[in-house]
Amino acid sequence: MTEILDLVGIFVFALTGALMGVRKRLDVVGMAVLAEMTALGGGVVRDLILNVRPAAFQSLGYVLVPLAATVIVFFWHPHVARVMPVLLVLDAAGLGLFSAVGTQKALEYGLSPLHAALLGVVTGVGGGMLRDVLAGEIPTLLYDRQLYAVPALLGSGVMAGLSTGGLHGWPATLAAALLVFWLRVAAMRRKWRAPLAKGAEE
Amino acid sequence: MTEILDLVGIFVFALTGALMGVRKRLDVVGMAVLAEMTALGGGVVRDLILNVRPAAFQSLGYVLVPLAATVIVFFWHPHVARVMPVLLVLDAAGLGLFSAVGTQKALEYGLSPLHAALLGVVTGVGGGMLRDVLAGEIPTLLYDRQLYAVPALLGSGVMAGLSTGGLHGWPATLAAALLVFWLRVAAMRRKWRAPLAKGAEE
Amino acid sequence: MTEILDLVGIFVFALTGALMGVRKRLDVVGMAVLAEMTALGGGVVRDLILNVRPAAFQSLGYVLVPLAATVIVFFWHPHVARVMPVLLVLDAAGLGLFSAVGTQKALEYGLSPLHAALLGVVTGVGGGMLRDVLAGEIPTLLYDRQLYAVPALLGSGVMAGLSTGGLHGWPATLAAALLVFWLRVAAMRRKWRAPLAKGAEE
Repeated sequence: MTEILDLVGIFVFALTGALMGVRKRLDVVGMAVLAEMTALGGGVVRDLILNVRPAAFQSLGYVLVPLAATVIVFFWHPHVARVMPVLLVLDAAGLGLFSAVGTQKALEYGLSPLHAALLGVVTGVGGGMLRDVLAGEIPTLLYDRQLYAVPALLGSGVMAGLSTGGLHGWPATLAAALLVFWLRVAAMRRKWRAPLAKGAEE
Repeated sequence: MTEILDLVGIFVFALTGALMGVRKRLDVVGMAVLAEMTALGGGVVRDLILNVRPAAFQSLGYVLVPLAATVIVFFWHPHVARVMPVLLVLDAAGLGLFSAVGTQKALEYGLSPLHAALLGVVTGVGGGMLRDVLAGEIPTLLYDRQLYAVPALLGSGVMAGLSTGGLHGWPATLAAALLVFWLRVAAMRRKWRAPLAKGAEE
Repeated sequence: MTEILDLVGIFVFALTGALMGVRKRLDVVGMAVLAEMTALGGGVVRDLILNVRPAAFQSLGYVLVPLAATVIVFFWHPHVARVMPVLLVLDAAGLGLFSAVGTQKALEYGLSPLHAALLGVVTGVGGGMLRDVLAGEIPTLLYDRQLYAVPALLGSGVMAGLSTGGLHGWPATLAAALLVFWLRVAAMRRKWRAPLAKGAEE
């Protein structure tokens, strides 16, 4: 079940990567590269830090699902602007799934709950940051003021707490992922904003 | 022989990195850093994913050859524009060598043929992508529409097929590298172009 | 003692990251991410290359110190411009500490003196390069012409020489770090400049 959640996360992140490719007028190869990097980047960084061979290079599905997302975006996508709200909601779902699954894997490999939650955030936001940097943009989460990394951190913390308290498995993962998703969507709808330093406000 | 091919690939990639440094008006330190990153980046990422210590940090030649390329570009280079076609052909040669050698090493470390070919592409295009990002540009292969990653993928696939079929060693590596080189140069000369998504064409 | 020097280096690098966040008008989350990345990025890359689990994911202090630096910059910082000279001196101190500590760790893990010095430079400059790329800028050290990587390389080389000659421990680390600091500050004050290639001068 966790593997299915992981594939769903990979699919929605790949969609955001391919859509970014359309928005930046990249060709189909660029769309596919961005889809793969967005979908697999966070998990690859997580696995490199855990010092294990990245899951992306051991599973057929992890490599092929982003290509399927690329094909869908390539053919189905007439107007980019219209799907931006959908893109953001999909992105929130991927963020939740990746943060929760990343935290769980980090705990399995012996990291402390705090470091596991941190690596969960890296898993959740890493692919999107890579996507933005490759597309020539400052990563959205750095300046956007809408909360993105904070929901991931709270959900990863809850996941680490549940796991440390003995609640493993996909129900815990799903609960933590939904918490991240709900916090992220609420942050977008209610415009919860991260503060700026005084010097930067002028 | 494979080691010599590897050093040749490092040399030509380092030349493209140092030339990019000249084009962006970087100083000699920036040229050397771009030369090292372009030449060694793809292989370092490959080795990190294979979970082995990067070859670049175990060999004297891998570190010194990019410095030699930097010195050559620094002194020999009067007008950047004039050598851009040469740069592109050198880059195609490096792409072929790195893709083939990367695929072979990935197979030796037990990756499946599909994942080995994928890691071969990462080896081939990784250094150049790093070079472009560090130089403040969107990686050429994402938007250029001229085929770059596709020749690398086809050559890496052939390499994986030959190796799986029992044809190892430098003749197979050289054949796969030449296939990439020929496809890449043909793509440039005949202007084979990757398609854009419909939404991006408007 | 080496651990304390390491934490001091992390603190000053985190300050430069958070200050960059203010300068680019990032929100407090972006400031924290840049602080963490600048402070921990070089060491994480060093540990990935040494093929060991990154120290940043095993120590509480390494994660919390950049957050403390972020809080200090967030509240204490009224005018960015006024502290830029301080930022540069702090950065020189962090560069020295990280280069020396990085070289020492690389030697402990069996790299040759030359490769250890190179990895020391990567440790010293890696976090700052990551900071600049994430902030949407070409890494300063590539174009600035003021010497930055060269002091790190000389200090790392001296560190590798001292260690190879039997002088280990924090006095050697501190001496090498001070050498980098002094060379870097002297390079700024006396405007020692790295040359440009002829083609780029026109």
